[in-house]
Amino acid sequence: MPTLVLLRHGQSQWNLENRFTGWWDVDLSEKGIAEARAAGALLRDRGLDFDCCFTSVLTRAIRTLHLVLHQMDRLWLPVTKDWRLNERHYGGLTGLNKQEMIDKVGADQVKIWRRSYDIPPPDLAEDSPYNVSGDRRYSDVAVPRTESLKDTIARAVPYYEKEIAPALHAGKRVLVSAHGNSLRGIIKYLSDISDDEIVGLEIPTGKPIVYDLADDLSVNRRYYLEDA
Amino acid sequence: MPTLVLLRHGQSQWNLENRFTGWWDVDLSEKGIAEARAAGALLRDRGLDFDCCFTSVLTRAIRTLHLVLHQMDRLWLPVTKDWRLNERHYGGLTGLNKQEMIDKVGADQVKIWRRSYDIPPPDLAEDSPYNVSGDRRYSDVAVPRTESLKDTIARAVPYYEKEIAPALHAGKRVLVSAHGNSLRGIIKYLSDISDDEIVGLEIPTGKPIVYDLADDLSVNRRYYLEDA
Repeated sequence: MPTLVLLRHGQSQWNLENRFTGWWDVDLSEKGIAEARAAGALLRDRGLDFDCCFTSVLTRAIRTLHLVLHQMDRLWLPVTKDWRLNERHYGGLTGLNKQEMIDKVGADQVKIWRRSYDIPPPDLAEDSPYNVSGDRRYSDVAVPRTESLKDTIARAVPYYEKEIAPALHAGKRVLVSAHGNSLRGIIKYLSDISDDEIVGLEIPTGKPIVYDLADDLSVNRRYYLEDA
Repeated sequence: MPTLVLLRHGQSQWNLENRFTGWWDVDLSEKGIAEARAAGALLRDRGLDFDCCFTSVLTRAIRTLHLVLHQMDRLWLPVTKDWRLNERHYGGLTGLNKQEMIDKVGADQVKIWRRSYDIPPPDLAEDSPYNVSGDRRYSDVAVPRTESLKDTIARAVPYYEKEIAPALHAGKRVLVSAHGNSLRGIIKYLSDISDDEIVGLEIPTGKPIVYDLADDLSVNRRYYLEDA
């Protein structure tokens, strides 16, 4: 039975500070490291195992994966890293905490962005310290200036279809360590969740989500491993 | 200019206990973790950078690489893991410390094994607790029962030629995190060291060895980064 486990990275330093992170490469907090280790121990203790892993090109997701694999004695598994699993690019919101954002644009506008599926925040300024378009890891990528959730899903789901689904079809057990919004994309696609509903789906950090899939990769069951 | 950096993993728990490790998957010691971090900081501070990385399928080399890349903010680099970069398989010596070995076979025999290029230790017993032939990571591999240094080099050098050299030819800067004897193989090949001499070449843990290569991958210079 093909098995897919999705894992949102452990708490990052900016999750802790309540700041929009997006493509800015913030590391795990101490709590995030502990969350990742606990996720690895849970996967190990429940007898889950994997054949290959996918993650983004952001430190918080990669380290989460490494900490999990270390707990599982599976550091030797192949790991594929791709920007298409990155967090949503938050454009001009990058670096702001929620209060700063409300002060800047007003609570009504914040609510619109938070509840919207397809309205992106304003573009990140070219001269922003959080502009990563010159980062070598994106040398072959047209780095977005901002993304709506819809935009994020429009890259994460094709990546799932092109790279992850074939591994599952080949009988591999797959672990994906990624981000709130790239995972929303995969969950929306697999569990057929509406645009309106997916916006409100909260995915906690460091909690493995298990998909038991049929041979055609339709969903038999989706659950949080800690609840099983 | 193609650049290749070779790194022997940080001290492992069994390096510390002076036991033959080989393919047994022993983790880094606290000192080994510190050595790996120091190697990463040194590479970063000296301005070295990489495009891709290779390592074995053993935890101590993989973790060393991860700790280095974390220091360098380069966790996003692609990493290829292959058993051909594993440590020499020490056969029936696996798990023994040097005193136990002398007690078991005598100092003369130990000296022969230590100084020999092509005499392997006795086979590891099928029922040894250190027999990894059933380990899933080797499902496609004919796990050796023992290896001489020559045997180790006979898999490490073809791997260099087939996978690492093409990356260097393509202009990539390459970091290899591996083991004393697989690295001896690559150094013997690149620096044209004789069978007799290579046996005595000691490679310290956690010290980056830099190869500045010509376009045809002949060696311009080889040095320990900390001495540069």
